[in-house]
Amino acid sequence: MDVYSFLEAVRTKHPLVHHLTNWVTIYDCAQAVKSFGASPVMAHAPEEVADMTGLASALVLNIGTLTADVIQSMKEAARAANDRNIPVVLDVCGAGATPFRDQKSSELLDYAFISVIKGNSSEISRIAGLDVRTRGVDTEHVDADLRRIARTLAAERNCTVVITGEEDIIADADRTYIVHNGIDMMSRVVGTGCMAASVIGTFVGASPEEATAAAAAGLCCYGIAAELALKKSGGPASFKQHLIDSLYSLTRDEVLSMQRVE
Amino acid sequence: MDVYSFLEAVRTKHPLVHHLTNWVTIYDCAQAVKSFGASPVMAHAPEEVADMTGLASALVLNIGTLTADVIQSMKEAARAANDRNIPVVLDVCGAGATPFRDQKSSELLDYAFISVIKGNSSEISRIAGLDVRTRGVDTEHVDADLRRIARTLAAERNCTVVITGEEDIIADADRTYIVHNGIDMMSRVVGTGCMAASVIGTFVGASPEEATAAAAAGLCCYGIAAELALKKSGGPASFKQHLIDSLYSLTRDEVLSMQRVE
Amino acid sequence: MDVYSFLEAVRTKHPLVHHLTNWVTIYDCAQAVKSFGASPVMAHAPEEVADMTGLASALVLNIGTLTADVIQSMKEAARAANDRNIPVVLDVCGAGATPFRDQKSSELLDYAFISVIKGNSSEISRIAGLDVRTRGVDTEHVDADLRRIARTLAAERNCTVVITGEEDIIADADRTYIVHNGIDMMSRVVGTGCMAASVIGTFVGASPEEATAAAAAGLCCYGIAAELALKKSGGPASFKQHLIDSLYSLTRDEVLSMQRVE
Repeated sequence: MDVYSFLEAVRTKHPLVHHLTNWVTIYDCAQAVKSFGASPVMAHAPEEVADMTGLASALVLNIGTLTADVIQSMKEAARAANDRNIPVVLDVCGAGATPFRDQKSSELLDYAFISVIKGNSSEISRIAGLDVRTRGVDTEHVDADLRRIARTLAAERNCTVVITGEEDIIADADRTYIVHNGIDMMSRVVGTGCMAASVIGTFVGASPEEATAAAAAGLCCYGIAAELALKKSGGPASFKQHLIDSLYSLTRDEVLSMQRVE
Repeated sequence: MDVYSFLEAVRTKHPLVHHLTNWVTIYDCAQAVKSFGASPVMAHAPEEVADMTGLASALVLNIGTLTADVIQSMKEAARAANDRNIPVVLDVCGAGATPFRDQKSSELLDYAFISVIKGNSSEISRIAGLDVRTRGVDTEHVDADLRRIARTLAAERNCTVVITGEEDIIADADRTYIVHNGIDMMSRVVGTGCMAASVIGTFVGASPEEATAAAAAGLCCYGIAAELALKKSGGPASFKQHLIDSLYSLTRDEVLSMQRVE
Repeated sequence: MDVYSFLEAVRTKHPLVHHLTNWVTIYDCAQAVKSFGASPVMAHAPEEVADMTGLASALVLNIGTLTADVIQSMKEAARAANDRNIPVVLDVCGAGATPFRDQKSSELLDYAFISVIKGNSSEISRIAGLDVRTRGVDTEHVDADLRRIARTLAAERNCTVVITGEEDIIADADRTYIVHNGIDMMSRVVGTGCMAASVIGTFVGASPEEATAAAAAGLCCYGIAAELALKKSGGPASFKQHLIDSLYSLTRDEVLSMQRVE
């Protein structure tokens, strides 16, 4: 897989990536996008979400701190994106933790076409109908064949499904990519999962005709940046700083020599 | 006081700490919890706050950017916590700055049982009924016996009271701890007070049967991490980064050799 | 221009700077203010915005993640500021991206007196009535005489107008300052524009009788801090950390030797 060509597409096209996301990691989501030379924008007022989405190359939705009002804005944004063939990434953050998150995730999935459904193993398993729990927004171990869950859900919804974890699974009905880049420290840093969704949005926004491969390439670059960052880090905060810096400076040589994608 | 045993309890039990907090420092509150190996979650929708609280080992409330709606969600979360004997920490951020903050703080305190009331000297003095002002969310000097104020309020409310400052005062009706760890630079960094409340929630969540001692131990570890961080810092932003890193890597030797608790 | 005397006024007077701002960069806005030794406060509940504004030396409004509710609170805060002669800074973040932002910017400008209108070139051009677009919250190139646009808008509104960019333009009806300090990297870091508005609020809060010169001095100090930070940085995240540290430690010698203000 030519991961670097997808990174190059991002850096050439500078996609505008519109977010309706949570209030915890909203800054990091924006900065992850910006580090690639792309433009993030965050706007959730019902009066403007459709207009802002109309300017964008991709829409990223994240239900981390959902409220009924913001979900309503997400629906309008997603419909506006569908009308213009703009890809929509949904991070089902915390699905499996409360009935409200399960219900609102379902509503979003049924109301508009979602191009990429992304979550950790318990979140996606829950969306796929398994009786699992999520520990707030942290994954619980799921004793199931995650690759199969991703493929099945992708086929049912005719979309791309991403399960992040020790290995990242990126699947559609036809093709499954496994990304082995990334490191354990990411689970000790708040926002690494949310930033992953923004990275996917950035890459899919630059290469919408190849959403699954673009999502895999994005996660591969993100994982490589994390591996580079770890070497310079003394803990979770310095790690996050170096992660953002590495996204910014990622070179062709680093990508070619370090990518581990099946 | 065996401070390290409380840190060990956190690292062994990985408590889930549910927050309804402000939009300024919400990321840092989450990352402070996560740095200890615990799990933060932030959720404020009225439809799910009780469910999310039910999964948690502690609930942290912070009124820094309060609105009437979020206060209503805080009440529901606090009641749900009370029903399940989950400890509740309330940071009365900005009490004494506006009548609205004073009124909503009182409402929360009267509506549900709060296990730990935490604030700086002017915030807690205001909650204790003194005619003092807070400068936005920064403390004003209070010319009063803070230890006595803490003890009296704790006895009245049958809870733990924490006053952060040059010395941290942690009191209940029976016992007062004074933590001397910590440094001046903390007052130049936005969010150090809010993170202190999250640290308290994490430690009390892991040792709920000893809330006062756990709160003191948490603030002691937090202060030690700050002292370690200062040595590596060139200003408030690098200090905050090293503070988070130090929370993550804090060792038994560091705690034993540096703790200054009366 | 004696830039340093304005910095000294900030450090001596410790102005309290009240913000109603966006949820993306709210932390950085607060920390920028605090790095100078001033006090930030963020509060948006309609029940308290007037009271909190009444305590402040300056009010900063930023429409980055506007909603109708928060705009209503901004109006009340701005009126309260006007009643007490407290300067109001408005960052018209994203004006020119959606009709909603244009309309709400106009409403704010017509409802209360705004002391300093601040934006990038496409945002201010849009406020000045030009038919330009903003790319989310990132500027689009505007083919127009920006200095003249700033001066004309300032004269019409009897206020100070700031256009940030490669050169910062700070104009009122009588006087135009051009600040050449600053670096390209700032456009790769989320929040540098929002922090600029908070810096302006801090400097104008300390020297309200000289708003235009104070705004120019603030942007000059901010640009110098950015130049100092760049030397130590490996990318956008480490740059932002060093920028905040440099705001904190900025010396008289650095200001005198590096200031480039026309």
